[in-house]
Amino acid sequence: MAKTVRFHSFGGPEVLLLEDLDIAEPAAGEVRLAVKAIGLNRVEAMFRSGHFISPAFPSRIGYEAAGVVEAVGPGVSSFAPGDRAAALFGLSMERYGTYGEQILYPADRLVRIPETLSFVDAAASWMQYGTAFALVEVANVRAGDFLVVTAASSSVGIAAMQIANAEGAIAIAVTRSRSKAPALRSSGAAHVICSAEQNVPDAIRDITGGHGAIMVFDAVAGAGMAGLVAAVAPAGIIIAYGMLAGATAEVLLPALMQNNLTLRGFAANIFVERADVRARMVDYINRKLSSGALRPIVDRTFELSRIAEAHRYLESNAQVGKIVVTTTAGQLPP
Amino acid sequence: MAKTVRFHSFGGPEVLLLEDLDIAEPAAGEVRLAVKAIGLNRVEAMFRSGHFISPAFPSRIGYEAAGVVEAVGPGVSSFAPGDRAAALFGLSMERYGTYGEQILYPADRLVRIPETLSFVDAAASWMQYGTAFALVEVANVRAGDFLVVTAASSSVGIAAMQIANAEGAIAIAVTRSRSKAPALRSSGAAHVICSAEQNVPDAIRDITGGHGAIMVFDAVAGAGMAGLVAAVAPAGIIIAYGMLAGATAEVLLPALMQNNLTLRGFAANIFVERADVRARMVDYINRKLSSGALRPIVDRTFELSRIAEAHRYLESNAQVGKIVVTTTAGQLPP
Repeated sequence: MAKTVRFHSFGGPEVLLLEDLDIAEPAAGEVRLAVKAIGLNRVEAMFRSGHFISPAFPSRIGYEAAGVVEAVGPGVSSFAPGDRAAALFGLSMERYGTYGEQILYPADRLVRIPETLSFVDAAASWMQYGTAFALVEVANVRAGDFLVVTAASSSVGIAAMQIANAEGAIAIAVTRSRSKAPALRSSGAAHVICSAEQNVPDAIRDITGGHGAIMVFDAVAGAGMAGLVAAVAPAGIIIAYGMLAGATAEVLLPALMQNNLTLRGFAANIFVERADVRARMVDYINRKLSSGALRPIVDRTFELSRIAEAHRYLESNAQVGKIVVTTTAGQLPP
Repeated sequence: MAKTVRFHSFGGPEVLLLEDLDIAEPAAGEVRLAVKAIGLNRVEAMFRSGHFISPAFPSRIGYEAAGVVEAVGPGVSSFAPGDRAAALFGLSMERYGTYGEQILYPADRLVRIPETLSFVDAAASWMQYGTAFALVEVANVRAGDFLVVTAASSSVGIAAMQIANAEGAIAIAVTRSRSKAPALRSSGAAHVICSAEQNVPDAIRDITGGHGAIMVFDAVAGAGMAGLVAAVAPAGIIIAYGMLAGATAEVLLPALMQNNLTLRGFAANIFVERADVRARMVDYINRKLSSGALRPIVDRTFELSRIAEAHRYLESNAQVGKIVVTTTAGQLPP
């Protein structure tokens, strides 16, 4: 029996129930993981509250986990019991949700955890760096590029700034209030713009000497998109990966056309669904994690039994970086 | 003295005046061309009527011309008197407008005319194929791709369908009324959707077996953009190069994000401003013109003295393909 988080209806954090379930032996191609740590993501709160995908109830939940391989199913040669492994994101949460002491997961969506990385850091890595890997794979970020990151204190925002720094680019963080500015500076922001106090497009133009930023990594969309478009340099790109301010973006075409700008809608699933891209992503991120160029910023950890409280905190927007849930289950690595 | 079209204020076709001007000797890097044919473009009607860029008056006008080199300025070795040459687009019309019997033009923005091509066809080629070259350079069109072309009976629309066919792609033409369907089919459309009678996104899904089109070449924008986005296949691209239905596009981000779609604003100037891209474009188009894979569709020609009438026809939307103005000036090629 393993403690497993499920929910039986949409609702607030209180719908997340800790249930004792028997976890089956892994099927062909699957691995059973003793979970040590679980990374939380905003999309999971949206899933829980009915603003993402509708599952059949009761449903599991969760995209990220790190732990120790307990058993492998038929045909699995890439992992053996005792291996430290982390789950990539992007599978059906209903079927492969990661909030639990034991989970089944397809072997080809697990990655080996570098020796220097803790379970907590491994559980905090894949969704954020996998999403921010768009800067490399989609936008081809280069040294000297100005990159604007909105919702900069989110885990993905910080991951984007770290990848920017790893590539020699210059990160401009956009955040609501000045209170998070020091934490953002120490997380990799070369400049911080406070949207509550400053005109964001004007501030971007000031920082970039009037040229505009060559790329924007945007989680916000909504009405602010028009201003962002006006602050992008010719041939620049806006990667839209979230819509905290609403699902509709008004795009002014003259600016988009005259400056040959790209607005790219982005969901990181595309990086795990194709084996070649997945291999590039895993190689890049594991190399940078091992070298220390990427270092997950963990805001706070919770015990699995306090999952509802963890979700409440996730939705408070008080955090800078990642929220991780830990378990006491599973054998220790050999 | 050379007949030259200028306008002294914004207005209807009647503001285009035929004036006798002395054309100077070419300056360093310039060529003087005896113009034989001039291609007309919709943007020139917008320029004339004050909906594009504001020039100092009186202003020249025109982006395209083909003719014979009369004289070359200091430092020009790429052309000699007697050479057949065509003007690329993208320079200031105020300074380098092409409507006239003689024009000065920078040598590096002139291209040699393939032997098999008439002056009329050469004057009808560069703006339309240069714009549609975005399918190759930006969207990487491939055999079997479904390409949706809006405003399909425009010269650029037809050019896009020809390039699609040259690459083995399948062109889906969107046009307002059924009356132009036969002409579009003979110009390269594999399918024709009549927007006055059909739901365009539904028709695109039908034609593509439910998958959607991998690329859209759109001159319309406005409210129809939302429907187009919903009819694009995963990882597809919409190239927005015109805004006949308005400057604001409403973009629904869930479709854009979940399907990893790209909305690319596009102005063809980017292809002539960079020497490396310009060379690729000129090479591609001249090769395809020489082989006959690209063949300009000329709807009608007018004498230069009837330039106002030609502009009136340009704005009538009755044409399928290019309107070309001819002159009787200039020496014949040797």
